[in-house]
Amino acid sequence: MTAFAIAGVPIASPGDDLSALILKAIRESDRPLRDHDIVVVTSKVVSRSEGRFVDLADVVPSERAIQVAREAGADARFVELVLRESVEISRIAQGAIIARHRCGFVVANAGIDRSNVGRSTEVSATSELVLLLPEDSDASARAIRAGLMAGTGRNIAVVISDSFGRPFRMGTVGVAIGVAGLPPLWDRRGDVDLFGRSLQHTVTALADQVAATADLLAGQADEARPVIVVRGIQFRAGESGGARDLVRPASQDLYARAT
Amino acid sequence: MTAFAIAGVPIASPGDDLSALILKAIRESDRPLRDHDIVVVTSKVVSRSEGRFVDLADVVPSERAIQVAREAGADARFVELVLRESVEISRIAQGAIIARHRCGFVVANAGIDRSNVGRSTEVSATSELVLLLPEDSDASARAIRAGLMAGTGRNIAVVISDSFGRPFRMGTVGVAIGVAGLPPLWDRRGDVDLFGRSLQHTVTALADQVAATADLLAGQADEARPVIVVRGIQFRAGESGGARDLVRPASQDLYARAT
Repeated sequence: MTAFAIAGVPIASPGDDLSALILKAIRESDRPLRDHDIVVVTSKVVSRSEGRFVDLADVVPSERAIQVAREAGADARFVELVLRESVEISRIAQGAIIARHRCGFVVANAGIDRSNVGRSTEVSATSELVLLLPEDSDASARAIRAGLMAGTGRNIAVVISDSFGRPFRMGTVGVAIGVAGLPPLWDRRGDVDLFGRSLQHTVTALADQVAATADLLAGQADEARPVIVVRGIQFRAGESGGARDLVRPASQDLYARAT
Repeated sequence: MTAFAIAGVPIASPGDDLSALILKAIRESDRPLRDHDIVVVTSKVVSRSEGRFVDLADVVPSERAIQVAREAGADARFVELVLRESVEISRIAQGAIIARHRCGFVVANAGIDRSNVGRSTEVSATSELVLLLPEDSDASARAIRAGLMAGTGRNIAVVISDSFGRPFRMGTVGVAIGVAGLPPLWDRRGDVDLFGRSLQHTVTALADQVAATADLLAGQADEARPVIVVRGIQFRAGESGGARDLVRPASQDLYARAT
């Protein structure tokens, strides 16, 4: 297995065609895409290309947002966006609201990014831009995949990744929030193990591990590395139910609790 | 970055010197280790080499184990081992006890493995072997690292990995339960981001992402692949506090709760 960054992909601006930007960077590199390559794109460039910026100066917080903001010690306008982007609150802590995003995954502040969201167009001194997650990351993954396959003639899989914190463990890890063209989960139940018994616990989060691999590499440079190729993983190409398959239903989750 | 399995490493038996087995397999391959290679060893072979087998037929459950076993619908002898291996119970579900292992990490059934634990020595028909996690995975990682460095003259890092389930998300992912020679966490706070602001959320779980990368590759074959080399990651060699650094203290964990 190898993984490498595609050099020369810009961090994207609203309206950019991401697959066109990636194809251009690939053409200018000496590493053409191959069948079964998994192209991992950070959510940030997807959100940027989709124009998912919001200026906090334009947000009027609801009463509920003001109440939650007081509890969390956070900006009520920011909390308002978190509430709009999520379906339930999981936990509230100082400075962070752990929420279930509209798309199902549980993440701090509904994945809204307050860092690194400057954009090329000029904004006023009072504006404070934040960046929401993509509207529908699975749909974004399918669109990027279609563009890459049309442009290369190769059977490509696409993962849209983000970095999430987690219960119990320190540090963030890459996870898949959008998937197209590969199975998010790899179910090996029923396979027989080395001693002839049935394997236990053998549904692996294939797409999350691909995202973690890419995150490992993305963090290795000072410059932005928004697109990473993971090559050499075998999977049934085209078989994909989307990143929603990675969401554990709240009814089966020992740690789910709405407040 | 590249990752590859070291072919020819057996799944190990009690008393085996793991670093000697790995060195032998490397010498018989055409891929010598290099400085800064990260050697990822699955906990299973470490446990096996350390003889961490227990025969359930030899276990007498305590009253508490019988009580918890009734609640979980599990074998009381197995639950007894889970309780012995853990410091607190996090959640109880049908068939599984989520517990905080002695070494700090929260994992189903204290990481005790009921599959795949046959061993070469003959056992009676009534025996039912299970395999505990290594006694001290950080110490095991340090020992394997010392052996590999002595045998190769290279500066090697070692991660001992396991596959854990997680709250909120389906499927297992590789995590680091033992670390030697590389920083488990990579703290980039204070670095300035692309737009000149300080980065947020930038402590990445380096060793966990290395373990996830290795797990991706380990699952790619029908035969056992207990040792994976991850090559091409930059890190400050030798800087390591052990996998305990990856444990979020219960006091800082929104999802911790003892029963």
